[in-house]
Amino acid sequence: MKTVDKYVVGVDFGTASARAAVIRVADGTEIASATSAYQHGVGGCIHDAKNPLVARQHPDDYADGFALSVREALQEAAGRGGIDTHDVIGIGFDTTGSTIMPVLRDGTPLVRLDQFRDNPNAHIWLWKDHSSWAEAEEITEQAEKRHPEYLDLVGGVYSSEWFWSKVLHCLRIDPAVHAAAHTWMEVADWLLFTLSGGGLVDDAIRATCPAGHKALFNMDWGGFPEEEFLAELSPDLVKISRTLDPSRVRHVGTKGPLLSPEWAERFGLPGPVLLAVPAFDAHYGGIGAGVKPGILVKTIGTSTCDLTVSPLADGRLTIPGMSGIVRDSILPGYYGIEAGQSAVGDILNWFVNTVKPCGMTYGELSAEAARLRPGESGLLALDWMNGNRTILVDQRLSGLMLGLTLHSRPAEMYRALIEATAFGARVIHDQMESHGLPIDQVIVCGGIPRKDAMFMQIYADILNKPLHISRNRETCALGSAIGAAVIAGAYPDFETAIDHMTGVLDTVYRPIPAHREVYERMYGLYRKLHDSFGATGAMDNLSQVMKELMDIKDEASRREEPVATKPAVLESVRL
Amino acid sequence: MKTVDKYVVGVDFGTASARAAVIRVADGTEIASATSAYQHGVGGCIHDAKNPLVARQHPDDYADGFALSVREALQEAAGRGGIDTHDVIGIGFDTTGSTIMPVLRDGTPLVRLDQFRDNPNAHIWLWKDHSSWAEAEEITEQAEKRHPEYLDLVGGVYSSEWFWSKVLHCLRIDPAVHAAAHTWMEVADWLLFTLSGGGLVDDAIRATCPAGHKALFNMDWGGFPEEEFLAELSPDLVKISRTLDPSRVRHVGTKGPLLSPEWAERFGLPGPVLLAVPAFDAHYGGIGAGVKPGILVKTIGTSTCDLTVSPLADGRLTIPGMSGIVRDSILPGYYGIEAGQSAVGDILNWFVNTVKPCGMTYGELSAEAARLRPGESGLLALDWMNGNRTILVDQRLSGLMLGLTLHSRPAEMYRALIEATAFGARVIHDQMESHGLPIDQVIVCGGIPRKDAMFMQIYADILNKPLHISRNRETCALGSAIGAAVIAGAYPDFETAIDHMTGVLDTVYRPIPAHREVYERMYGLYRKLHDSFGATGAMDNLSQVMKELMDIKDEASRREEPVATKPAVLESVRL
Repeated sequence: MKTVDKYVVGVDFGTASARAAVIRVADGTEIASATSAYQHGVGGCIHDAKNPLVARQHPDDYADGFALSVREALQEAAGRGGIDTHDVIGIGFDTTGSTIMPVLRDGTPLVRLDQFRDNPNAHIWLWKDHSSWAEAEEITEQAEKRHPEYLDLVGGVYSSEWFWSKVLHCLRIDPAVHAAAHTWMEVADWLLFTLSGGGLVDDAIRATCPAGHKALFNMDWGGFPEEEFLAELSPDLVKISRTLDPSRVRHVGTKGPLLSPEWAERFGLPGPVLLAVPAFDAHYGGIGAGVKPGILVKTIGTSTCDLTVSPLADGRLTIPGMSGIVRDSILPGYYGIEAGQSAVGDILNWFVNTVKPCGMTYGELSAEAARLRPGESGLLALDWMNGNRTILVDQRLSGLMLGLTLHSRPAEMYRALIEATAFGARVIHDQMESHGLPIDQVIVCGGIPRKDAMFMQIYADILNKPLHISRNRETCALGSAIGAAVIAGAYPDFETAIDHMTGVLDTVYRPIPAHREVYERMYGLYRKLHDSFGATGAMDNLSQVMKELMDIKDEASRREEPVATKPAVLESVRL
Repeated sequence: MKTVDKYVVGVDFGTASARAAVIRVADGTEIASATSAYQHGVGGCIHDAKNPLVARQHPDDYADGFALSVREALQEAAGRGGIDTHDVIGIGFDTTGSTIMPVLRDGTPLVRLDQFRDNPNAHIWLWKDHSSWAEAEEITEQAEKRHPEYLDLVGGVYSSEWFWSKVLHCLRIDPAVHAAAHTWMEVADWLLFTLSGGGLVDDAIRATCPAGHKALFNMDWGGFPEEEFLAELSPDLVKISRTLDPSRVRHVGTKGPLLSPEWAERFGLPGPVLLAVPAFDAHYGGIGAGVKPGILVKTIGTSTCDLTVSPLADGRLTIPGMSGIVRDSILPGYYGIEAGQSAVGDILNWFVNTVKPCGMTYGELSAEAARLRPGESGLLALDWMNGNRTILVDQRLSGLMLGLTLHSRPAEMYRALIEATAFGARVIHDQMESHGLPIDQVIVCGGIPRKDAMFMQIYADILNKPLHISRNRETCALGSAIGAAVIAGAYPDFETAIDHMTGVLDTVYRPIPAHREVYERMYGLYRKLHDSFGATGAMDNLSQVMKELMDIKDEASRREEPVATKPAVLESVRL
């Protein structure tokens, strides 16, 4: 039997559940899968009624979810799929991030101790926990003064979602948790540590992806931020930084540890297999979708992540506002470039489930919105309901809608919200392209692309690029599995593995010229609002924005051509 | 029996119905009333599915509504009220405006002719019909060039709601209607003409209020606009202007004609009585509420009207942006000053009935919104969903809401919309006061003041003035009745009649200092948005608006003092 007839397991830890997939190494086919929902809080997330910025989780949900989902997926693969579990050669996984928690020296999560059982600060601080916004601003200011180079590659602004903001906020608001914590770990690193049998966390592998994108790790300055810098923020931070060993930082192309016999048994595997170094969901998702230089992978879910890679070159690659530009962070041998929008699906969820206009369902809103011409609603929105991640990197921005009249209907508002997220995506593309990172093709992943043709057509029209859809529905699990296949030696490198194991659907959404023209005008107005409210310091004359929107609305209403209710699916493409 | 023991009838023609009230002359007490809803279209308004700017009505609804409501009110007054209809000494009435229609030389509305029965352009063009916006701009430009004085007293901008815009638009889009029309009449003037027995419309009384506020009538330039000016807009306009005789313009203090015997019979009156010259609803409403110099009467309904009066003085009184400053238009012997907001109740109606968030009722939204502290929602809106009447006078502005997050709830949005209308009202007050028209007291009329304590408290806090509520619920009908009482000789002048026949409730809403402070900051942000989007040419740095709102929100959330769920009713006052 050739190596390529083997199987790998990829596990995607999302915000609410873990999903394991058993993947055939030869062609990336998914043989079986299983999902395990997190049990704590609401949908796995523990909220604070008094502070909407707080979002916490419990580590047991991750450990139990890992065991349950992999065991069930392997059982299904062995049963219905007919595979022999001896042919499973590796396991890879991804998580959200920074999703971090305080742990003891032996890796025990603080929340497992009796005295911290009910303390939310001893739990996992989920990526979307924004309670550390003030610390993020402080770190940004401090870095601007002392080490501007720290910010060059993380978008110029340190985020409240990231490692040091959260650690700093916690030690200030809850000294007892800080005193008890030996260190803080990304849940991804903690899972790798745990599955490989534990030990002392000072020796644990810290994956390149979280370290580089969230904890200011870069070998240009010898690893993690220097102690003096951290000490000025708080002397207590030094205790944490001393537990972080730059020599233990590993990218996904390096061989990971072996699964412990105990965990092999929990998974129902006949024996230990190789564990791939984990990465963030979007990064392994980029691999699962087929990322390459010139290809932007866009994962659209509750929020959005845009990823691409650029060959390593002399001198740093700098693109203001990108969330991260980190060497080896997506594909070894490339700069991994990450951008994103703080909320996309979440904005539509908010509108449908919190505003609940006319009690309309997604389907009803979408059907009515699809009958509108571009510009016909006269509405324009800013997609900042959860702040702006790229390119403004500002959590303290908020959503806006204008053009409202006494006749504005829910479906018009719904379409305007989708358009707003597309305009937000367009800003990211423009920023990449104007800084020497051309985008030839876009591959879209996530749940929305297959479900919502109107959404995809609006994106194609506004981004002015053909939109392809990833063949695999679960690119994160697939990408994790590809990581396992590569470190297990099934392919010589990621590029070859990607060629064999990923692909796109036949359906392509292409820009419709008449739509483009209208959206180009609206994008000009969006940019005016973006730059005026976006704290860029730009001052623009907004006095014509409402009138121009009314002109666009009037012209759209007068148009004779039929509304494109169906998307333009023009050709079959395999990248 | 003294004259003051007599009775008068006041009829208020609203947008959807006519309401007649029988009023005791001695003290303004309402003895009986009756309402008659208009029958055509939806709620009396005929819409155009293709053009939301169109709003038309049918004159039969006015004539029939007049007859039915007065007859029923008199029957009730004679029956349950025990009055003798011989003691009814006069009838006054008010309408919306400009609410105009094309008529034949004998006053027959064109829409009563077979060939125009189904033509919306031959119907009444309701005040809120904005289809003539382009003509309004044209008239404004032409006046700026040729006769800037025409605009000085109508807010600097001629409105699409007004007489000449509508006539000009109609003659362009429907020459057949123009060819058939002898002239156009305000429905108020047409009712007076009709009730007094008809004749030729060239001899009809044209009331000062519509002529001065909507048709550019002013004796400073000899009456209506000069023919050359109108001819440059369209030679066809001259045909209409020649039917308008400045010597037939009359204010409410001049004696009107007698009711015709036929109409006396339709009303069930024993014989003819005096008819008062009509005025617009808000103007007679101002009288019914007790307008005087230093007192601003604010009528809050679907839209809003702010009225006050200022003693005649040498030289013109000029306040940029006011909808009108017209001699004798509210009270004889004063400048009548009118301002207003294009939508207030309509904005809340839109939110509750068109957006229908969570299917919540007014009561449910209001109850939840009342538990919020000022600033706590973090939301800020512009109340321009139907354009801006004062002080920007721009129909092509639109509504805006910002500060939206994934946690924004319908009740927060609802409260932000109310606050937006209050900020809009504040702009009007500031403009009056900064141009030498001090406001000592505000008397509020309309349906909302008695129903919605939260609404009133928000207005008191944002306007920073004590808010009194008119004692009479139907100030327009009362004011019309006062007009009838004065011309029938029951009182020597309007001032005396107002002292006897009007008053305010004991309930007073006073600004709460802690609220004021927050709202003062929010008003600063509102003004930034107002001036930036409002085509004033002002450019402001908006980059801190969202952050300041978040600061205000954070501070409001941290406050300890209880939320004022009950309004502060602090004292009894009789003005």
